This record gives sequence, C-alpha cells and structure tokens, in this order.
Amino acid sequence: MLLKGLSAFPITPSDAAGQVDTATLGRLVAPLAAAGVDSIGLLGSTGTYPYLSRAERRRAVDAALEEVSGRVPILVGVGALRTDEAVRLAQDARAAGAAAGLLAAVSYTPLTEDEVFEHVSTVLRESGLSLCLYDNPGTTHFRFTSALVGRLSGLPGIVAVKSPAPEAPAVAAHLAELRGAVPDGFSLGYSGDWNAVEALLAGGDAWYSVIAGAFPQIALAIVRAVEGGDAAEARRLNARLEPLWGLFREFSSLRVVYASLDILGICRAKPPRPILPLEGAARQRVTEVLLSLDLSR
Amino acid sequence: MLLKGLSAFPITPSDAAGQVDTATLGRLVAPLAAAGVDSIGLLGSTGTYPYLSRAERRRAVDAALEEVSGRVPILVGVGALRTDEAVRLAQDARAAGAAAGLLAAVSYTPLTEDEVFEHVSTVLRESGLSLCLYDNPGTTHFRFTSALVGRLSGLPGIVAVKSPAPEAPAVAAHLAELRGAVPDGFSLGYSGDWNAVEALLAGGDAWYSVIAGAFPQIALAIVRAVEGGDAAEARRLNARLEPLWGLFREFSSLRVVYASLDILGICRAKPPRPILPLEGAARQRVTEVLLSLDLSR
Repeated sequence: MLLKGLSAFPITPSDAAGQVDTATLGRLVAPLAAAGVDSIGLLGSTGTYPYLSRAERRRAVDAALEEVSGRVPILVGVGALRTDEAVRLAQDARAAGAAAGLLAAVSYTPLTEDEVFEHVSTVLRESGLSLCLYDNPGTTHFRFTSALVGRLSGLPGIVAVKSPAPEAPAVAAHLAELRGAVPDGFSLGYSGDWNAVEALLAGGDAWYSVIAGAFPQIALAIVRAVEGGDAAEARRLNARLEPLWGLFREFSSLRVVYASLDILGICRAKPPRPILPLEGAARQRVTEVLLSLDLSR
Repeated sequence: MLLKGLSAFPITPSDAAGQVDTATLGRLVAPLAAAGVDSIGLLGSTGTYPYLSRAERRRAVDAALEEVSGRVPILVGVGALRTDEAVRLAQDARAAGAAAGLLAAVSYTPLTEDEVFEHVSTVLRESGLSLCLYDNPGTTHFRFTSALVGRLSGLPGIVAVKSPAPEAPAVAAHLAELRGAVPDGFSLGYSGDWNAVEALLAGGDAWYSVIAGAFPQIALAIVRAVEGGDAAEARRLNARLEPLWGLFREFSSLRVVYASLDILGICRAKPPRPILPLEGAARQRVTEVLLSLDLSR
C-alpha cells in the first residue's frame, strides 16, 4: 500500500503574482523527508493548488522531487475545474516522477456522481497516473458517497481515498462502510488534523496532515505510537495539540499554518489573495499557542 | 440605473478544448438585442466563465460587443479564484467596452467577509469598471450578507447586486433588508428564474435571467407586464413556464438550456467537462416540455 501512515502537506510559498518560490519550497520539504514521513502531499489544499497555474505547479513538483530525490514518495494535487486541465496536470505529475496524483472534484456548477466518475476515469485513463480520490466537500462542495468511491475503486490505478475525518464517534462506521465498498489493499485515509488521530486508531490507513507539513516530528510521534499499538500515548500527544486544533477549526488550518511559519521566521510567504494572512488578535493567539507548544521540526 | 428590467444570460458556446465559438455566440446574442432586452449578461454562470481562459473570455466579449454594437449594454462576468486574475479580467472587460462587470466571490478555501471586501474593492480600484456584486452561494459557497452588500455599496462604482431570488414568501423581507443597507439608486436584482418573477413583483429592479438568454420573448413579456402594473398577466405567463422551472430546479438551468438549444437545433455546443450534457430520459423530458411550450426567440 503506497499511501499509509503519515502524509505531510506543506504550503507552496508563492509571491503576489502566483510565482512559486522553489528555493523556499525546498527548505520546507527537506525537513519532512529528513524526519521520515511516509509521503509528502504536495499541492494539496494547504498547498493552494487551485490558485496556481499549470506552469507554476510543474515548477513546484520539480523542485520538491529534486529536494527529496527519491527518499519519500510524493503525492501531487492534480485537481482542476476542467477535466482537460486535470488531465494535463496529471500527465505533468507523472512525467515529473510523482508517486500518485491527488484528485479532488473541484466544482463551480455543482456536479453529479456520473460527472465525477467520468472526470476521474478520464484523468486516470489519459494520464496513467495512480490516483488518490480527494473527498473535500469543505472546498469542492462535492461529497464522494461510499457507492461512488466503490465504483471508482474498481478502476485499476485508483488506489486510495482521502476523506475528511468524521467526529470520533462516527469514524468506525465511516471506515466500515468504505471498507465494504472497496477492494482489499485500497487505502482509506483521513484529513482534518483535529479528528485524524481517532480515525487512525479506528483503523484508518493514512493521516493526510497539515501540521505534519510544517512540524513533522509531533505528527510522526503520534503516528508511530498508533502503529506501535500505544493508543494512550497517541491520544496524550494529540491532546497537547488541542489548542492548535481549535485555531485550525476557527481560522482554517491553511491560514494558521501560514501564520505559524511566518511567526517562527521559517517562511514569509503569504497565502494567495483573496485569502488574507491572519493579523491582529488572531495572529497573537497563534503566537501564544506556538509558544505554549514549542513544536520542533 | 444601468441594471434594471431584463438581463439575458446566454451560454458561451465552446469546444472540447475550451475555445469559444464566436460565430455561434454572435448568433445567440443577436436575437437578444433584437428582442430589446435591457442588458445582456455575458459570461455569467450560464456562460461558464470560470471554465474559460482569460484569452477566450476576451474573445467572447469582443464578439458579443461587436454583434450588439452599442444597442444593448453588456454586463461581463469577471470573477476568478485569484484576485489578480479578476483584476485583469475586469481591465479586459473595461478596455473592450463592457458596461459593467459581474463579480462573484469565487472560492476554494472558504472566504471571510473581509477577504471578499478586499477582493471586490481591489478589482474595482485597479480596473475602474463599474461592478455588480454577484451573490451566488450555490456555486461560490460564499453568501453576501446585507451588511457586506451595504459596506461595498458605499464604494463609488459598486452599482448593483444580483442575489438568488428567495422563495416568494421571503422576497419582500429580503428586499427590504437590502434596501435599508444600500444608497438610493443601487440596483437590487435577482436570479433563479423560477422565483424571479415574484421578486420583480415585490419591487426588485432586475431579473438576471437564464431563460431570456435563450428565449428572450417570453421573459420580456413577463417583465413588461410587471413594468406595466399587470401582475396577473406576469403571473399567468410565469405559470406557463413552471414545467421548465421544474427541470431547471432538478437538473440546473445550465444543463437544461444547453439541452434545449441542442434539441431545437439552435446550438450544438456541449457544456465544458466535467459537466455532461443531459441524455436519455432527462433529455426526453426537456424535449417534451419544449414541445408543450413552443418558445419563440
């Protein structure tokens, strides 16, 4: 199984014109590989993929792949509003050497299940890139049903799904329903850092993690505790992060991670407009939480 | 008031690669001008603006403006995910001769009110194009509050808002709340064809109409009845269209209009993938409704 354990999702630093700062991206990606994450999720939602042009996305992929030079598989966001554009992005990612593509059902006109099935199967067929389905209704406003995941999982090359982690009491049922719909070896992973640890403990295969894209050590410690059967330690470490999860829920993980990297002097990049950097009281609260946690990279 | 009465929103015919068929677009726009609609809403959601490149959007604007040659003001969709791209689109629309821009709060990462305020005010400032705010939560997943509309309406050049028409019992309150927030002369218009006539009867200034982009005559008859004080006639004409409104609600007005134009041999263009043309039973139902209505252009 390609996508298991911890997948770390870094931001993609870019300037006001949308040009990717590949040197800084390399400096963000290097500690992830050094820490030993199981994969890197480049150009995910945290990596602002829909805000970047095809050319800039290609530059980002090349820079990250060069930085990790085969030490860690890289999953690359290939989502786009148009099917033909997603095809080209998946072709680019495959040509560059990505391990798999992460394909969201980006929408403007709300999409039907048949439309998303055709979209995904076209990208798969025309790129030959292994794909992880990206279920992110908070941004795409399309929700993959387990029936649709099951239907798509029958296509060779569709290898995983990244779902938003439900609240803890619901995650076992969510996993059981998906397991019943997909073949053996299909990876069921979760995003939404604040609920992801319970999803792993319930048997989820992977944590697609925003915090790990900036501060891999604490997320790795949690994942290794889960893998070692030490649920109590995983929960203890996760509980320490609750003040950060609260900020993620309130301001979005993307805005909080940009602010955190800026506050700590790691990366001065701002999110693409219209997204604004956190300022004033919000930024102050991020600063206080960072001071209380002393996160290492 | 620039935006009042009937604004007709045509599709933008394009090929599988996203190239606009400007000759066919001209043939779609010509009957709108000939029928005497009050404005044309080019590159709205029905005009698939977010699926088209800047260059193709510019070609569409040039073709439509050339076709109507000043007979009807053209409102041009200038929305984009990135603020800098929306600025460029608004600059293009202004340079081409558009009467105003239609600016939606297109989002991927959900946006805050402050972010949308900055986005809109930046586009206004850097383009100098008059703007109609485009509140379309069904596609953008951002809802303009009356407070935000009020705040933006204080900027010279923000001249109108296009809101989704609430159900009939709620429209008077919606209008009253907006009227209390905006200056005199600010245009309050509605989209969502199936509820728009009651919104006009309740005092709305404009109907941003999908049906009028394909079949202007029936929509014009309704608007002229409202303007003439004949609510009964407006409602009688609108009631005739209820079978069509039912299809709009079920399949989206965009898919139904593409199917209608194809069925009637007016335009063979398909919507941009991943959106699929209606087929089978759905298409058959559109055919039956069209036959029962005998819409003229």
